[in-house]
Amino acid sequence: MKKPHIVILGAGYGGMMTAAKLQKKLHINEAEITIVNKNDYHYQTTWLHENAAGTLHHDRTKIRIKDVINSSKVNIVLDEVLCIKPEEKVVKLANAELNYDVLVIGLGFEAATFGIPGLDDHAFTIANINNARLIREHLDYNFACYHNEIDKKAARLNIVIGGGGFTGIEFAGELANRIPHLCEEYDIEKTQVRILVVEGARTVLPGFDERLVEYAMNSLESRGVEFINNAILKECKKDSIVYEKYGKHHEIPTMTTIWAAGVRANSVVEESGFETNRGKVEVRCDMRTPDYDDVFVIGDCSMIINKETGRPFPPTAQIAIQQAETVACNVKEKIRGGELKPFIPNLQGTIASLGNDDAIAEVFGHKVFGWKAAVMKKMSDNRYLLKLGGLGLLLKKGKFNFFY
Amino acid sequence: MKKPHIVILGAGYGGMMTAAKLQKKLHINEAEITIVNKNDYHYQTTWLHENAAGTLHHDRTKIRIKDVINSSKVNIVLDEVLCIKPEEKVVKLANAELNYDVLVIGLGFEAATFGIPGLDDHAFTIANINNARLIREHLDYNFACYHNEIDKKAARLNIVIGGGGFTGIEFAGELANRIPHLCEEYDIEKTQVRILVVEGARTVLPGFDERLVEYAMNSLESRGVEFINNAILKECKKDSIVYEKYGKHHEIPTMTTIWAAGVRANSVVEESGFETNRGKVEVRCDMRTPDYDDVFVIGDCSMIINKETGRPFPPTAQIAIQQAETVACNVKEKIRGGELKPFIPNLQGTIASLGNDDAIAEVFGHKVFGWKAAVMKKMSDNRYLLKLGGLGLLLKKGKFNFFY
Repeated sequence: MKKPHIVILGAGYGGMMTAAKLQKKLHINEAEITIVNKNDYHYQTTWLHENAAGTLHHDRTKIRIKDVINSSKVNIVLDEVLCIKPEEKVVKLANAELNYDVLVIGLGFEAATFGIPGLDDHAFTIANINNARLIREHLDYNFACYHNEIDKKAARLNIVIGGGGFTGIEFAGELANRIPHLCEEYDIEKTQVRILVVEGARTVLPGFDERLVEYAMNSLESRGVEFINNAILKECKKDSIVYEKYGKHHEIPTMTTIWAAGVRANSVVEESGFETNRGKVEVRCDMRTPDYDDVFVIGDCSMIINKETGRPFPPTAQIAIQQAETVACNVKEKIRGGELKPFIPNLQGTIASLGNDDAIAEVFGHKVFGWKAAVMKKMSDNRYLLKLGGLGLLLKKGKFNFFY
Repeated sequence: MKKPHIVILGAGYGGMMTAAKLQKKLHINEAEITIVNKNDYHYQTTWLHENAAGTLHHDRTKIRIKDVINSSKVNIVLDEVLCIKPEEKVVKLANAELNYDVLVIGLGFEAATFGIPGLDDHAFTIANINNARLIREHLDYNFACYHNEIDKKAARLNIVIGGGGFTGIEFAGELANRIPHLCEEYDIEKTQVRILVVEGARTVLPGFDERLVEYAMNSLESRGVEFINNAILKECKKDSIVYEKYGKHHEIPTMTTIWAAGVRANSVVEESGFETNRGKVEVRCDMRTPDYDDVFVIGDCSMIINKETGRPFPPTAQIAIQQAETVACNVKEKIRGGELKPFIPNLQGTIASLGNDDAIAEVFGHKVFGWKAAVMKKMSDNRYLLKLGGLGLLLKKGKFNFFY
């Protein structure tokens, strides 16, 4: 008798945790499990802004899949997913084709640029390890170029962050800590460097408590970050950006625009013909697609409406990790013929880092800021590592620089 | 009575050592001494290839002028020399004008590209700290870009060194040691990276003993360096270079060409109207210009014919440092009305580094290679530091990694 084949697409927060749980929950004779991923490593998407700013090396952010997944229990296929054919129960990869009995789609997000001219060509996004280290090198490179040109270009030292949401602010915080080191490395005056956050809304970090937002802005401004709120990015050129504020157009010379104002689900999902809402699959309460009983969707490719607010839960790592527990349980029950259970999110709060020793947090209804929040952020990061790979992984990749 | 004013232009090997000697030789009442330099640091030109390859941080190569020169005895002017007017005994700086009674010109070298199309625009030279760290970042940047492009470009991973002379070979050696680290950093296969040395002559390192040249080529080839000898660089484009070999043209895709095949004296010397031979002043035996009794020229701006060979002595740090002793003595005698003495070079030998733990050397007639030569190289570097700034400077900037 052939064992049922469970295929997990993507080794992000959702897919990786699902695989880690399933290898424990299922006996090796019950099912064949395969995880498909482009790289041989998982990475912590929520740490990428640190890699991009150059304050944390990307080796700390990468976790080798084999360090967490037991390859004698789970097949690890390194390949790219081209499309899914749910009617045929087939996944087409760049170099192979896989048949599945149960599928878990955890293909994550990609940048959405909403057709703003030039963003695709000239802006960076913090989407994966490759992008992040390119941003780090791009910053270094421009600083290195500065003194080698007779006409010194301000565009090399102006850094524009498009979007004052979570990612934009966290990146600005790291950057503010990094710039003094870059200035020293390349003999550049700190006052010549500008970090500009361009935000469409009235304030940055929409959704956060107003006093915490004010705290965050003060913290960043004291380290040289400038905020341009109520401003819409109109165009990104090779060496400038144009934004509109109160009906007027302004141009800032810059060779470094980081687009942090839009993500969408991996377009493979939509292109494979799943019914989507803004690219995401509005899953049933047990995390399956509306149309296919054997396809689960997890993380940023899925959407769940928060009944209290009528709006979708935000696409966070926290939610993806929680979903993985439900999905792993439900996949097991599906194999064993048991009953599937609904996903119930447990929102513990949000912590936005503002650089190494500063952060703001709303946790269990409490508002916290400063080093206490920064410590909480690191502890929350560490908890994930413990959950995913046990003490070994925590000790290898955890953040223990609580007090420096 | 006004003290005579000694002005030293440039804080390279020659100027810096002259100033260091003079501040000891002359009493503070005898003369006013001024040293003019663009930066507040002296740098070891012979270490720049290591900074450029990224195997040594440029802070190790920089020596703050104030760490060696006592600013209560010598005025340190940070400015750029625009031109010298020897008839008027005036030096025009970008922001000032200086009158002198005795002048020492130690303005060093600049790259010579001999009109080869594209070199000025697209090639790098290892001429100063700014260039060197730009090359380092340029390498990193191209490696970082590689995986971010759908069409992966070999041009990003091919590094061409124009010229297999001293600088080209020493740089190739460092690069060969650096590439494995870059490959690990950016997830690139080592076999995809090429280091190519394009040399016009039949062999690299002309002038060196043939067996040592063979040793050097073997050492570098074993670490992946390719040699294209008998090849003339014809053109450097944005993403390729063209060379001619045996009448045929060949093109190599590359975004990184390091031009290491030509230097000339600082063009300020020629533009100031001094009589020059290939940009250099053929000095009298006491290191003064033929036409002006109060102007000394030192280092790469000067030329002395070796009577044994009929050819000029090579423009090395070793020679510049030896000249500084003579120039300092003669400046002192000029102030005191004594007799000037001739410069007698003391050629101790040549050591070419091939990376951290390998080198070739011809010293006092002996031929040495391997780690012994590498240790000799470091000891010779250390001797300079000791001579220039005493034990303190040696301990601060010396190379003590003899056996790793």
